[in-house]
Amino acid sequence: MKTQAALLVQTGQPLVLAEIETPALKPGQVLVEIAYSGACGTQVMEWRGDKGEDKWVPHCLGHEGTGTVIEAGSAVTKVKVGDKVVLSWIKGSGIEAGGAVYDWDGKKVNAGGVTTFQRHAVVSENRLTLLPPDLPMDVAVLLGCAAPTGMGAVYNVLKVQPGDAVAVFGTGGIGLNALMAAALAGAMPVIGIDPNPTRRALAQIYGATHVIDASGDVLAEIKKIVPQGVDLAVESSGIPGVMDQAINSTRQQGGRAVVIGNAKHGAALTLNPGVFNQGKSLLGTWGGDSVPDRDYGRYGRLLSSGRFPVRDLLSKPYSLAQADQALQDLAAGKVGRPLIDMSLR
Amino acid sequence: MKTQAALLVQTGQPLVLAEIETPALKPGQVLVEIAYSGACGTQVMEWRGDKGEDKWVPHCLGHEGTGTVIEAGSAVTKVKVGDKVVLSWIKGSGIEAGGAVYDWDGKKVNAGGVTTFQRHAVVSENRLTLLPPDLPMDVAVLLGCAAPTGMGAVYNVLKVQPGDAVAVFGTGGIGLNALMAAALAGAMPVIGIDPNPTRRALAQIYGATHVIDASGDVLAEIKKIVPQGVDLAVESSGIPGVMDQAINSTRQQGGRAVVIGNAKHGAALTLNPGVFNQGKSLLGTWGGDSVPDRDYGRYGRLLSSGRFPVRDLLSKPYSLAQADQALQDLAAGKVGRPLIDMSLR
Ligand SMILES: [Zn+2]
Ligand SMILES: [Zn+2]
Repeated sequence: MKTQAALLVQTGQPLVLAEIETPALKPGQVLVEIAYSGACGTQVMEWRGDKGEDKWVPHCLGHEGTGTVIEAGSAVTKVKVGDKVVLSWIKGSGIEAGGAVYDWDGKKVNAGGVTTFQRHAVVSENRLTLLPPDLPMDVAVLLGCAAPTGMGAVYNVLKVQPGDAVAVFGTGGIGLNALMAAALAGAMPVIGIDPNPTRRALAQIYGATHVIDASGDVLAEIKKIVPQGVDLAVESSGIPGVMDQAINSTRQQGGRAVVIGNAKHGAALTLNPGVFNQGKSLLGTWGGDSVPDRDYGRYGRLLSSGRFPVRDLLSKPYSLAQADQALQDLAAGKVGRPLIDMSLR
Repeated sequence: MKTQAALLVQTGQPLVLAEIETPALKPGQVLVEIAYSGACGTQVMEWRGDKGEDKWVPHCLGHEGTGTVIEAGSAVTKVKVGDKVVLSWIKGSGIEAGGAVYDWDGKKVNAGGVTTFQRHAVVSENRLTLLPPDLPMDVAVLLGCAAPTGMGAVYNVLKVQPGDAVAVFGTGGIGLNALMAAALAGAMPVIGIDPNPTRRALAQIYGATHVIDASGDVLAEIKKIVPQGVDLAVESSGIPGVMDQAINSTRQQGGRAVVIGNAKHGAALTLNPGVFNQGKSLLGTWGGDSVPDRDYGRYGRLLSSGRFPVRDLLSKPYSLAQADQALQDLAAGKVGRPLIDMSLR
């Protein structure tokens, strides 16, 4: 069928809104009518060409969204026509069916196992999870990327316990998901650290008991709140110097910091290796170690609990034609988490 | 009572064999007749003054050993007179009774909660664990430091599983304990990496299925054995560049490296922070996260299983008068793990 997609044709150039033809489904592939797409730093990096030459252009974009199944390829058992689903870059159960190739007036358009900047997408079964009940489809785009990364870092990687002292460095979209996760689990105090006063105010809305201006002496301020250092820290800025602060902010003999901020290509982190002899750890994670089939239901219940105004984590909706603007606004820091609403024309 | 101790009187100078007077026991303190003491890099660092000015001189030394209880202070319940015990710097259950102050012809001699370079020592209850049955008292000094650090790093921190691919960087004393631990748990392959051919040969005796010369292209050699990278890595050299190799040797999405090598004061570790986005982690530990009361029994069973020639991990015994020589030989790399036998005159 014909559909519309916001394509990356050349890195550094505006996205192109194109009419493309979906291919016939291969075994394990699912055709999804997209309702909403999110966007995050990963798309900004692709769009800018931050990783060097892009051999896949022209290609589809986006790795978090929600939609409705309108056709299921052979061998698909996880979803059926009519199911509402979450699309996520994190692999779950089901067939890994590879990417799709669309036709654009005779040109090939590449796509990975999941893409979402389009009205209809051919998606690998293992990137789909049934939409949790009671969760609106717009809010549920958080389940595709920000919630599993931020909440998973706190629950699966750090394994927060009630009463743990937690510091979150960087309170943008993913950092706020980590803050909420810590607060919902009974962490206390929950300290949000950011140089931006607007984001510090947001941190207080999403569960921070204390906020600290990152431009000051952060470690001294943390010690005023928790003299021995925090039990757990989350680094969501991607800045090497902040990763160093994060591990140093934790207590000796068991303090742990997890990095969920995306480091820039070529960045270098310098640490005093003595922190490891003090029993502190610096943890990495791939999607918050989240397992969609196991975790998205509980993340969905937490998001729909009403405890926090989670809808406000998403921007005012952009139309698909405004996808390029959404990435520009994200790159400029004007919005936290852009939302693209396919029903807008 | 009068006893004999090898004291640090001035950093950088030979130890002094002195007749000192033990103080009356405070509540929670235990008087132990030392049978054997081990020695490790920590004593070398103290002796050299690697951490700067030493405000405690003259003081006792040593934090790993075995002995027999000859007097128990009030409130002590964990051990009784006649018990054979392991002395360890790692805190277990029991009273933290603080350090002891000995008298040396009118001068004060300081000592921490546990010291072992002496014939009799006043030890805090929480640094004592009953000697596991069937473990000779000389071999058991390994339980004071090397085994909990090396085995604990593998069991408690990395939580090795059968079939995990493990790389151990640096196959000196603690590295060999980690190697044994991995092999005993069913890890495979178990890769030992060291620049020294003698230590590589030892690695093969203590469980390595493969050895790699650290002077070559280590990561390329590891990939020949485990193309996706190892699941787990142990860094026991304390060298920042090797820490970087260790985390890079692990697989994406869950690879973990633990640092048990002591970093030099002022050392700097430089890493590509992108490794954390790949889902790799760099873990620190304090004594292998070992809990003496929980772990020393099982470590003791593993050491006394006969699977590996564990006695050979210790040097030919030095007398107490040779304690200075033991540290010199250790610092010069002539011995792996010095053993001081108090019965030698
Ligand atoms: Zn994303
Ligand atoms: Zn030691």
